[in-house]
Amino acid sequence: MGGGGLGPFVNIPSLMITVGGSFSALLINFPMKRVLSVFGVVKKCFTQKLPAPTEIIEQFKEMSTVARKDGLLALETRVAEIPDEFMRRGMELVVGGSSKEEMQVILETEISYIDERHKIGKKVIDALGAAAPAFGMIGTLIGLVQMLRTLDDPSKIGGGMATALLTTLYGAVLANLFCIPLAGKLETRNKEEIMIRELMMTGLLALIEGQAPRAIQGRLSAFLSPTSRPSEETQTAA
Amino acid sequence: MGGGGLGPFVNIPSLMITVGGSFSALLINFPMKRVLSVFGVVKKCFTQKLPAPTEIIEQFKEMSTVARKDGLLALETRVAEIPDEFMRRGMELVVGGSSKEEMQVILETEISYIDERHKIGKKVIDALGAAAPAFGMIGTLIGLVQMLRTLDDPSKIGGGMATALLTTLYGAVLANLFCIPLAGKLETRNKEEIMIRELMMTGLLALIEGQAPRAIQGRLSAFLSPTSRPSEETQTAA
Amino acid sequence: MGGGGLGPFVNIPSLMITVGGSFSALLINFPMKRVLSVFGVVKKCFTQKLPAPTEIIEQFKEMSTVARKDGLLALETRVAEIPDEFMRRGMELVVGGSSKEEMQVILETEISYIDERHKIGKKVIDALGAAAPAFGMIGTLIGLVQMLRTLDDPSKIGGGMATALLTTLYGAVLANLFCIPLAGKLETRNKEEIMIRELMMTGLLALIEGQAPRAIQGRLSAFLSPTSRPSEETQTAA
Amino acid sequence: MGGGGLGPFVNIPSLMITVGGSFSALLINFPMKRVLSVFGVVKKCFTQKLPAPTEIIEQFKEMSTVARKDGLLALETRVAEIPDEFMRRGMELVVGGSSKEEMQVILETEISYIDERHKIGKKVIDALGAAAPAFGMIGTLIGLVQMLRTLDDPSKIGGGMATALLTTLYGAVLANLFCIPLAGKLETRNKEEIMIRELMMTGLLALIEGQAPRAIQGRLSAFLSPTSRPSEETQTAA
Amino acid sequence: MGGGGLGPFVNIPSLMITVGGSFSALLINFPMKRVLSVFGVVKKCFTQKLPAPTEIIEQFKEMSTVARKDGLLALETRVAEIPDEFMRRGMELVVGGSSKEEMQVILETEISYIDERHKIGKKVIDALGAAAPAFGMIGTLIGLVQMLRTLDDPSKIGGGMATALLTTLYGAVLANLFCIPLAGKLETRNKEEIMIRELMMTGLLALIEGQAPRAIQGRLSAFLSPTSRPSEETQTAA
Repeated sequence: MGGGGLGPFVNIPSLMITVGGSFSALLINFPMKRVLSVFGVVKKCFTQKLPAPTEIIEQFKEMSTVARKDGLLALETRVAEIPDEFMRRGMELVVGGSSKEEMQVILETEISYIDERHKIGKKVIDALGAAAPAFGMIGTLIGLVQMLRTLDDPSKIGGGMATALLTTLYGAVLANLFCIPLAGKLETRNKEEIMIRELMMTGLLALIEGQAPRAIQGRLSAFLSPTSRPSEETQTAA
Repeated sequence: MGGGGLGPFVNIPSLMITVGGSFSALLINFPMKRVLSVFGVVKKCFTQKLPAPTEIIEQFKEMSTVARKDGLLALETRVAEIPDEFMRRGMELVVGGSSKEEMQVILETEISYIDERHKIGKKVIDALGAAAPAFGMIGTLIGLVQMLRTLDDPSKIGGGMATALLTTLYGAVLANLFCIPLAGKLETRNKEEIMIRELMMTGLLALIEGQAPRAIQGRLSAFLSPTSRPSEETQTAA
Repeated sequence: MGGGGLGPFVNIPSLMITVGGSFSALLINFPMKRVLSVFGVVKKCFTQKLPAPTEIIEQFKEMSTVARKDGLLALETRVAEIPDEFMRRGMELVVGGSSKEEMQVILETEISYIDERHKIGKKVIDALGAAAPAFGMIGTLIGLVQMLRTLDDPSKIGGGMATALLTTLYGAVLANLFCIPLAGKLETRNKEEIMIRELMMTGLLALIEGQAPRAIQGRLSAFLSPTSRPSEETQTAA
Repeated sequence: MGGGGLGPFVNIPSLMITVGGSFSALLINFPMKRVLSVFGVVKKCFTQKLPAPTEIIEQFKEMSTVARKDGLLALETRVAEIPDEFMRRGMELVVGGSSKEEMQVILETEISYIDERHKIGKKVIDALGAAAPAFGMIGTLIGLVQMLRTLDDPSKIGGGMATALLTTLYGAVLANLFCIPLAGKLETRNKEEIMIRELMMTGLLALIEGQAPRAIQGRLSAFLSPTSRPSEETQTAA
Repeated sequence: MGGGGLGPFVNIPSLMITVGGSFSALLINFPMKRVLSVFGVVKKCFTQKLPAPTEIIEQFKEMSTVARKDGLLALETRVAEIPDEFMRRGMELVVGGSSKEEMQVILETEISYIDERHKIGKKVIDALGAAAPAFGMIGTLIGLVQMLRTLDDPSKIGGGMATALLTTLYGAVLANLFCIPLAGKLETRNKEEIMIRELMMTGLLALIEGQAPRAIQGRLSAFLSPTSRPSEETQTAA
């Protein structure tokens, strides 16, 4: 199990059986659009950086101070600078004079979108994680049958077996190195993002209500579970 | 794992063991009628096109406008043109002067039929998906015992093994390429169809009540979950 | 996988390991009486024909007509002819002048017996279905160890392997062709029988109350789920 | 798979890997005391004979008759003869003049002990039943690696393989012939014993309250599920 | 399966595939910080000795006696000597004059930290226990493909197979000897520690309330489930 390049481990037909078979099963199960949307969901899950809850609370305290002094319209200049799309859209509603009720309906729908998208993504990845080892085994069976049928030259058994086993290897790697951990990550990430979005929504509604910075902090702190306070956790875990 | 035709992968006795064994197990478990009805359920699931929710809402708004101007009977000429059977039957009741209560009982029974049929279909396919790999393995064991008993000529081992492995291959393909994805599709499809049917029933009842187009739209929009609004979803997922 | 008789597949010691081992495990888990009672439960499940719900409703309507004209005692002559034991016992209580309360206690106890018997039967069959493949594998391991220990003559390897694999084959067939489908059938059958018995009980209580045929039909029809109306189902499934 | 003694199936190092490994895993999971207590629980489950519910009800009726005629103290002479420990302890409280409340607290604590002990016992046996096949496979892998490394003489392959497979065999037998059925038995037994103990507690409390024999029988009969009336069950099952 | 050193069982590349692969999967699923924190949680679970509940109750009775005689401040000298960190922090609050409400919030947050930490630890260990056998199999497949591709010299088959099997062995040992029992231990330990911490919190609150020793004992005894009274359990189990 020492050296040797990746060469013997690359076989295009084997890859096609495992990956192609798994995706065929996925496309019978789910509409094409849903399967493709998973790539976007997974990519976003790794690239999109969520703002830290403590940072969001600070922002709301600051904005509340400004709003109470100069009115909600004084926040207008800041809106375009907000990097997070959800927060920016919410602030546009705030400075646009949206009512509390309108705002809540719009943002809750937005949050249910996010949840829905993650849940569908997880379901598709779970299905892929179950299909990949199965099609890996199917590929190995196909390879073994082919090899055994043409068993003229014993010296070729080794190579045939090796090729046949590749699909099982591909299926196991696809499931265990990608699908299972990704499904886990998507679930954790979903919880985090939903929490952040609800924190933002609560803050935005408090802004419209014109609450004082101190009151906003009190209300938003309820969202901070012990694990979201990294400094304290490290301290206690030590 | 290169070329080679399908020839070495077709073996009628192997197919009979895997498929025949699985269906024998199904027929012990379920009445014949129920097993056969699954073919119809699956076929319908792929061929029957459900009308889009937004399209249905538009239709109801239009019909409500007509009905409020010229009475429910003015809709009579349209009924025969309605392609969807459930909707047509409902409209026949509407123009036939059926009361709201009668209508609700009839349509709810109809909807529970659809749900029942899909659930039984899924149960049978799940059972088949569990039986197929098992009978695939049983076939392979039968093949191996036969081959090993008559082990006179070592050159025939390969061919015997290949044949023995075919049943496992058939079972795995049957389960993973057909049963598991079909069961998943049936479940998704059931949710969709039940939603569409309840949307139609709500619309039909609103027609009988003589509600205004705007009120009908309001009531029916509650059925639209974020994912049923394709245009918006694409926009947000991007 | 062509011809060949059943000969090579029959091996008494192999059968004893698989079946004997599985039953030993069952007898540690369940009292002997319970294991043996399963045979009766399964047999009844295939041989006992349940009367159709619509037929039962017709009978009750007819008996109610008679009872309302000539009194409950006029039904006495019919009681002995009733083929179904549960129904006959119930009618004996009706014409014997049993009160509604007494009747209900007796019949509900009877129904809970039936449910209990089916549930225990399913539990034992489930346990057998889990034990059989395990003891099949144990038998194969025993066979392999025996064969490998006495590996003097390579020509005997094939036969030894074949015999060793038989127990796995027996275990798989026992589980997948018998236990799993039987457990499924028992569950479905239990639901059906409980429904029929509750329908009968409701009818018998209505008779004692002296309800009119039309009222009885109304009350009993509530038991008919869409799937128990065969004529309609066929029509809709088409 | 014919004759041959047990000789080839006994191998002390193999036994040590399977059983030793499984118990090591158990001792990481559970405290030593808990693992050892399981032996007592299992032994009791097979040796301790529970009195039949109908017999207990008869005893209480008889004692109630005596107590109502001559007072609770008249039962004192019988107490020492009671074979069942729980019942004897309860009767000691009755004749000792314990109040109803004191009695109930003491007996309920006693019953929760029994439940707890059985549940812990089942949990440990479940863990053993899951560990045994795993360590059986670990042992076989160890044996195979050892054999393959020292593959000088092909004639020794058979023996090496046979020894390697023994641990898998031991693990499968330990799990399927002992752990799984024992866990099932412990669960059934727990339900039975808890029912018997609650029946006894209810009877003892009724004695202190000075209830009449008929009232005691009525109250205690509620504990008799259909399956605990053996005579009737046999009759109906026929 | 007799002698032989550990030599043939150590292979660094094999270890790297199994352990490295499993940890790669973990790090896709969980943030690095969370994976690393598990080592601390597990270590604490084995090294941190929890005080016995009966001992804690005794301490509180004693402290209550002192506090009722000389005031809570009289306990100040003892605080620094308390070995358990949670208890010491709580006593600092008590002698520091903290209110009952402040105390409760602080200690409940502390307890939810502990619970959270254990739950995350268990989740990571569960994921590792599922990944290890999978990556063991992946490693064996890699080893087999490599060996079969370079099958020039039949005498090297044995060695290659042995090496290939090592990863499966590592994965099985990692899962069954470490992960599964550790996850079980963490769960049991979590229950124990949460119970001890809630017992302590209840005692500390009672101290602030100035309750009498007898009242404190009464309230704290409710936390003692039968199994936490080791002396009685041994007695009954005998």
